[in-house]
Amino acid sequence: MGGRRVRGGRRRSRAVRGSEKPEVSALAALRDALGDIVDVSDETLESARADRSGHRSPGRPIAVVHARTVDDVQQTMRIATATRTPVVVRGAGTGLAGAANAGPGEIVLSTVRLNRVLEVRPDDLLAVVEPGILNADLNARLAEHGLWWAPDPASRDISTVGGNIATGAGGLLCAKYGVVRDAVLGVDLVLADGRLLHLGHRSVKGVTGLDLTSLVIGSEGTLGVVVGATLKLRRITSGDTCTLTALFPTVRAAAVGSAAITASGVQPAIMELMDAAALTAAHDLLDLPAPPVGASQLTIQTDGPAAAAEAESIAVTLRAAGGDVIVTTDRAEGERLLAIRRAMHPAMAALGTTLIEDIAVPRSALPEMFDEIARIEQIYGLAIPTVAHAGDGNLHPNFIFDGDEVPAVVWDAADELFRAAVRLGGTLTGEHGIGMLKSRWLADELGDDQWELQRQIKRVFDPLGILNPGKVFADA
Amino acid sequence: MGGRRVRGGRRRSRAVRGSEKPEVSALAALRDALGDIVDVSDETLESARADRSGHRSPGRPIAVVHARTVDDVQQTMRIATATRTPVVVRGAGTGLAGAANAGPGEIVLSTVRLNRVLEVRPDDLLAVVEPGILNADLNARLAEHGLWWAPDPASRDISTVGGNIATGAGGLLCAKYGVVRDAVLGVDLVLADGRLLHLGHRSVKGVTGLDLTSLVIGSEGTLGVVVGATLKLRRITSGDTCTLTALFPTVRAAAVGSAAITASGVQPAIMELMDAAALTAAHDLLDLPAPPVGASQLTIQTDGPAAAAEAESIAVTLRAAGGDVIVTTDRAEGERLLAIRRAMHPAMAALGTTLIEDIAVPRSALPEMFDEIARIEQIYGLAIPTVAHAGDGNLHPNFIFDGDEVPAVVWDAADELFRAAVRLGGTLTGEHGIGMLKSRWLADELGDDQWELQRQIKRVFDPLGILNPGKVFADA
Repeated sequence: MGGRRVRGGRRRSRAVRGSEKPEVSALAALRDALGDIVDVSDETLESARADRSGHRSPGRPIAVVHARTVDDVQQTMRIATATRTPVVVRGAGTGLAGAANAGPGEIVLSTVRLNRVLEVRPDDLLAVVEPGILNADLNARLAEHGLWWAPDPASRDISTVGGNIATGAGGLLCAKYGVVRDAVLGVDLVLADGRLLHLGHRSVKGVTGLDLTSLVIGSEGTLGVVVGATLKLRRITSGDTCTLTALFPTVRAAAVGSAAITASGVQPAIMELMDAAALTAAHDLLDLPAPPVGASQLTIQTDGPAAAAEAESIAVTLRAAGGDVIVTTDRAEGERLLAIRRAMHPAMAALGTTLIEDIAVPRSALPEMFDEIARIEQIYGLAIPTVAHAGDGNLHPNFIFDGDEVPAVVWDAADELFRAAVRLGGTLTGEHGIGMLKSRWLADELGDDQWELQRQIKRVFDPLGILNPGKVFADA
Repeated sequence: MGGRRVRGGRRRSRAVRGSEKPEVSALAALRDALGDIVDVSDETLESARADRSGHRSPGRPIAVVHARTVDDVQQTMRIATATRTPVVVRGAGTGLAGAANAGPGEIVLSTVRLNRVLEVRPDDLLAVVEPGILNADLNARLAEHGLWWAPDPASRDISTVGGNIATGAGGLLCAKYGVVRDAVLGVDLVLADGRLLHLGHRSVKGVTGLDLTSLVIGSEGTLGVVVGATLKLRRITSGDTCTLTALFPTVRAAAVGSAAITASGVQPAIMELMDAAALTAAHDLLDLPAPPVGASQLTIQTDGPAAAAEAESIAVTLRAAGGDVIVTTDRAEGERLLAIRRAMHPAMAALGTTLIEDIAVPRSALPEMFDEIARIEQIYGLAIPTVAHAGDGNLHPNFIFDGDEVPAVVWDAADELFRAAVRLGGTLTGEHGIGMLKSRWLADELGDDQWELQRQIKRVFDPLGILNPGKVFADA
């Protein structure tokens, strides 16, 4: 395991240009080549230290390059390679694992100004876009054509398509409509040395060689810089939507209810579970009457031509499982019910600093996973309000604390949480990624052999180790 | 480009155990370790030389190992590594690109006896299987649970799940229900040196590290031996199916009709196009009355709760496009109509030796691709009967000739065909893979930089180059 500490040492030993500090020569070269898109203002450098995880790097990076063209990206990478300077690729900075946090000695390559929609093809159900466009802005553009890019992370209004690709993002609609990996046909990738590769296809099918597109999705800036993407689109679903809520006396009962729906074979578009602490906090925030003590809630939406029949079938299943069920076909009422779920993040933020976890388990294991969370709450004396994308077994347990630093007891509890998820056949991250916050657990899940193999693949793309060092594959 | 010829030379220079011929020591070691699952019978060795592509290796391999357990696979790979002996992994041998063809000096590792269904979980919509089970046998087992593994290559009755994974197989239902890559959560992989890795997840979501599962899918035996797979299942679709046929005066008109359906936003489960030569040959084989001269046909099936409404909408679109449309909700009649499409392969085989090509283009480019095929037919004086999975832009042009050897003129025409597909934004293989038959065109599509990067990734998995050498990344 000692080999995992090598990269930091290697980076330091590779300073070039004689006795000059490497960051000085890198900054000078960037300014020479790229002029005023090289930003060293206090505010910009400071904001590049953190994402939405609450974690912050130990200091400011060298510069933020606001790339406007693919050539800007290529020039930046050529300079980074020549000067052996680490590069952190950054979109809107809404990540939750610290993958885009940049610190001393690092160049930040921002792709937010690379935000054009290059092509929309309703006949081929595809779009070609640059990475910096916001997910919601893209979908507004696509809606004019009756089209839709399905990945819908909760951050969709503020997160970029490039960031969604870098993390392999999920969201609320994944169980029915898939995650990012299901919705990208190809990516254009600038390598560490500045070369540009076109990966993937424009055709729906294609098996020429290895699937490097899928390899890049979720690679969190460790393999290259995504400068373009060919996205697989859907037609906007026509017909009704139906929304249901079901209140259960315990979180375990709600989890059993959601597992019963999956087992019944009905596929909701959305199926969200809020435990008692999460539900109470959301009601508080929205000034709604408090829910019954201990009550947990499922919020479910069906869509498409069979929406009403599916909602009816779901209501029967949930009532049989002991749920107190409300069904509505009114869109406004449906949005009002979903708003309670959507209030989760601000409701948590109102309670203190939040560490949002992201485990996923096979759907049948949801009730056991909630048992484990209750056990961990008791052992560590913590409240862990939890919301789950129950339709795909993805849970977001929230740790709340005071101040900027994650307390040791929270990491200890998180460690137990990860181990429990893996023990139940699950994973330590369903959709947020490893970044720097979970890198110390990565080898535990992958096994040492696979961990080392993945690192070797990273080196094929990035032999000098300048792409997002210290993230994903770093040791704790 | 000269670098591409290295592997063969390297392999020959790595013979071990002094002056003994390497294949002798490999065979002896296999027999010592594995006993009578090491098969050197004439018939077995001879049959391992060819798949269903018609291509045959220059001679017999050393032995076929009929692995019954994962440990058998690991032992075989350890011996292969120790003796530097190339290994060709083989399922049912139904491939169409020569990827599983084995020749002199090679060990064949057959996974067909590794054919157990280890787990079926209706509650989690997943199954864990060994690679040797036939696709159709698996689906018969799953049907008992009301479940279904969606990938449906035309070979499904005779091809293994492991082979489907190795090629990243498609089929008729892909446009609506996805390809193999959309239906596999994880694979267990034995590396070249015999180590066993568990890649992927049991949960629907999971973004821990790089997506090696997707990398292995479609890798055609070049990265490791798939010894297990966790498959993502669907519930069997309930409700009606509707079947339509539409006869058009020209193949271009039929292609325009199919593109109009995609553009209209309706998603058929099946949408197949047969050109005039293909349709006539299938009618001949089935003793049906000859279709009108020059006529091409679309065969379409809709399913699910909106099947009838979708069929109605499709009929309107096709009639507007000049099609002569028949619609039926009768399942038996629907099967009779689809049987004409299913007769394609035997109909071609009745005409001579067949080289089945497998290009894919963006769906809007289907009409232009058929124009290109007509142009190539004229230039080379060949008939190229073509069937297409029109719903996803995947065409199978068939070259018919006499004898075992593909004539030079056919390769010349195929070369034109591949270049035309790539020029139209497509790919030289939609679902059959590269194998040995298309390796000489791979770099043309990928570009030299990506081709070399892919080769380096292969070396991470297989540093000695013993896994399926001469396939996929080989030079012509």
